[in-house]
Amino acid sequence: MTRFHLLSALALAALLPGSAWAAGGGVVGENLLWLAIILMAARLFAPLAQRIGFPAVLGELLLGVALGNLTLFGLHYFDTIAQDPIIAFMAELGVIVLMLQIGLETRLADLVKVGGRAAGVGLVGISIPFTLGTFVVGPWLLPGLGTNAYLFLGATLAATSVGITGRVFRDLGQLGTPEARIVLGAAVIDDVLGLVILAVVTGLVQAGSVSLGEVGGIVTNAVLFLVGSILIGRALAPYSSRWLARLDSGHSMLFAQVLATGLFMAWLAHLAGLAPIIGAFAAGLLFEPLFLKTFDVPHIVREVEKLLPDFDKPLGKPGEANTLVDELVTPLRETLTRHTRHQHEHMLEPIGYFFVPVFFVLTGMQVDMATLADPAIVAIALGVTAAAVAGKLLAGLAAGRGVRAWVVGWGMVPRGEVGLIFAMVGKQLGVMNEAMFSVIVIMVILTTLITPPVLTLLLRNKNVGGGN
Amino acid sequence: MTRFHLLSALALAALLPGSAWAAGGGVVGENLLWLAIILMAARLFAPLAQRIGFPAVLGELLLGVALGNLTLFGLHYFDTIAQDPIIAFMAELGVIVLMLQIGLETRLADLVKVGGRAAGVGLVGISIPFTLGTFVVGPWLLPGLGTNAYLFLGATLAATSVGITGRVFRDLGQLGTPEARIVLGAAVIDDVLGLVILAVVTGLVQAGSVSLGEVGGIVTNAVLFLVGSILIGRALAPYSSRWLARLDSGHSMLFAQVLATGLFMAWLAHLAGLAPIIGAFAAGLLFEPLFLKTFDVPHIVREVEKLLPDFDKPLGKPGEANTLVDELVTPLRETLTRHTRHQHEHMLEPIGYFFVPVFFVLTGMQVDMATLADPAIVAIALGVTAAAVAGKLLAGLAAGRGVRAWVVGWGMVPRGEVGLIFAMVGKQLGVMNEAMFSVIVIMVILTTLITPPVLTLLLRNKNVGGGN
Repeated sequence: MTRFHLLSALALAALLPGSAWAAGGGVVGENLLWLAIILMAARLFAPLAQRIGFPAVLGELLLGVALGNLTLFGLHYFDTIAQDPIIAFMAELGVIVLMLQIGLETRLADLVKVGGRAAGVGLVGISIPFTLGTFVVGPWLLPGLGTNAYLFLGATLAATSVGITGRVFRDLGQLGTPEARIVLGAAVIDDVLGLVILAVVTGLVQAGSVSLGEVGGIVTNAVLFLVGSILIGRALAPYSSRWLARLDSGHSMLFAQVLATGLFMAWLAHLAGLAPIIGAFAAGLLFEPLFLKTFDVPHIVREVEKLLPDFDKPLGKPGEANTLVDELVTPLRETLTRHTRHQHEHMLEPIGYFFVPVFFVLTGMQVDMATLADPAIVAIALGVTAAAVAGKLLAGLAAGRGVRAWVVGWGMVPRGEVGLIFAMVGKQLGVMNEAMFSVIVIMVILTTLITPPVLTLLLRNKNVGGGN
Repeated sequence: MTRFHLLSALALAALLPGSAWAAGGGVVGENLLWLAIILMAARLFAPLAQRIGFPAVLGELLLGVALGNLTLFGLHYFDTIAQDPIIAFMAELGVIVLMLQIGLETRLADLVKVGGRAAGVGLVGISIPFTLGTFVVGPWLLPGLGTNAYLFLGATLAATSVGITGRVFRDLGQLGTPEARIVLGAAVIDDVLGLVILAVVTGLVQAGSVSLGEVGGIVTNAVLFLVGSILIGRALAPYSSRWLARLDSGHSMLFAQVLATGLFMAWLAHLAGLAPIIGAFAAGLLFEPLFLKTFDVPHIVREVEKLLPDFDKPLGKPGEANTLVDELVTPLRETLTRHTRHQHEHMLEPIGYFFVPVFFVLTGMQVDMATLADPAIVAIALGVTAAAVAGKLLAGLAAGRGVRAWVVGWGMVPRGEVGLIFAMVGKQLGVMNEAMFSVIVIMVILTTLITPPVLTLLLRNKNVGGGN
């Protein structure tokens, strides 16, 4: 009785204004367990996936599918995780940190070099799927719905989600390839174009027409944000880094500068109407390692360096001792230099290990296997998925010569959460019925789950260089 | 017009069931900015505090006070952060990670050694403030309220919050002192005893009486959790560590094992009715560095070690070359060993830098300077605070000989969020009026803000050893 009263009092206290913080224990309990489970399970599934040669992300996605469908086996415990706003926020933080890390590992100059190709891939990757969805697959496979519904289907097919592809490239160490850069650049462009499409389609549905001025405003907003933030950021970053390093040259300050900038620019992107992950990616781009050199090296490196200087001076027997110096000291110096160059990335790793799996596990949890129960829906969904894949693969051809078109094409295939958002807006506006919504969900599922294995096989095969 | 429709559609979509995740962009926007601000500002305030010789935590608390009272200057932007459940959860994660770190840096054997003293300090630290509050200060300074109100006042005075003190000790590198261990042990005991008091007082208020069986049940529950989890954990940890290391000996697995255990035991503690931070502390205790040796050393250490083995063999001229080996290789090995021993702590650091400040900034934000506007309330609050401080200082004397009683006493002084929780339960039960609640809030404020400076001065003076 006393325990019940106590807990109910705490629960009631949790509802008082201002008490979200103080009654933290009651509000946050289950979330702690879920985070512990997701964190540990993701770390267990990752090596399993890697053992069969697939990136860790596939393990996390499948873990999510498993957790999300336990109700089929009568286990209802995890039902509410997918709706929990705290877990949703952690997932969003996860994909933001991921894109920040990817941005840090990408040089802006490399992106600009493939700018033209990326634009081509982005444009084709939007227009062909949209056309297929609105004018071909929609009316053919789901007849009888209004034009508005087909418009939204087209918009959903036009979407690209860069989180999954970026993770696959990164897991496999392929971020430095031209294909990866084209895909990243095209994904950024597609985010802006997708925004335009969504705004246009929404305007058409709600008002019957849309003004070019409005659309122009949206594009200008987005482009201004992207270009402006990168230019301003790169101009400021050397100075702010020097100033911050003077204040506190420890690596916690460096870490804070990078992560806070990532969060801040994710928010700015959100203000500009873009996806927060585009802002995080831009934030990573603007930090060239050059700017961050003034920050301290890790403790161990510093202590080892303290031991080195004394051994630069030659000893009595030049031949022998100098050889020792050469064989030990020089490689030691090189090792230390190589490792200090990426200090800012090292401190983000644990943050990534904690948050990033939440995003992919939650993505997997959105997969409701029950939607696969209706064969008619599944058949239609397969058709729509084929159109979705074909549209993006054709975009891969727009990448031009000298790069692997299949890799670029498949890199653009996952729709992920972006497709779901488009579909939900359509549902909210009342233009999309349940059947179409289910079809879209299945299409998102398939494009999301198929891509990591296919992309991995493509990347590995080419690596083996002719073998299979 | 189109932008408005788009955003409103997204906002509506955010309310759909299942869409918390998909419409993430809309739900999480402002939180990104707040986290960026808290993270960066905390990292800026920390060195400022440290320059005047105070621990970083004081900077974070004061930053919170500043942010929380901007409304006095007409800036209402930050008003809603304190109520945001997502920020509240991040803060809870922060204090959980902090206690996990403190537990990792504390050896169970050392805690057990001071067990008797800690029990003494804990018991005195509960009973004297409770008595003072319920029978002395309450009726004297706030006359005319019912017995129930005084009981709750006493319960609030009995509380101890270990987060603030733990952070001060850790920031100043004093976690290894006997005083710190006594305070940590006493805080754990006080959490259990405080639970008992809160349950008893709640039961008395709600039902007029409380059965000894109920109380006994609560104590047993709590003690079983604490003792059981540590014993079982320490029995299991070597085996689970070996198994996990075989699966993936990278440091991400180690990090996940430690952090997931911390979150899991925080949840278990919450189930047992204890504060989650006690579970996190217990989780840290059960990981002896010994168990974690099987995990990989950081990359740089491994590469350096690769260079070392060749230089163990003696060279031609024993005297000279061996000297070189001794002067370089041996200290290098020692450096490496020393740094690998605490690998599991290193990866938690960035997680700590991200979350821990959120807790202390949010704690500071609970300080409503407007409550200081009424001089009568302030006067009463000063009296209650004096009783609160005196009661815990007397507990310091219970620490016995050979330790600094003032340090232990002041270490027990902060009430922090625990005091606020007790007060809120009382308010919820209807036994506490606004005046008493404001008094308690001021008391919590004062004990929380005064302790870091006082404790720092006490610890520094003794370090100087006779000087001032």
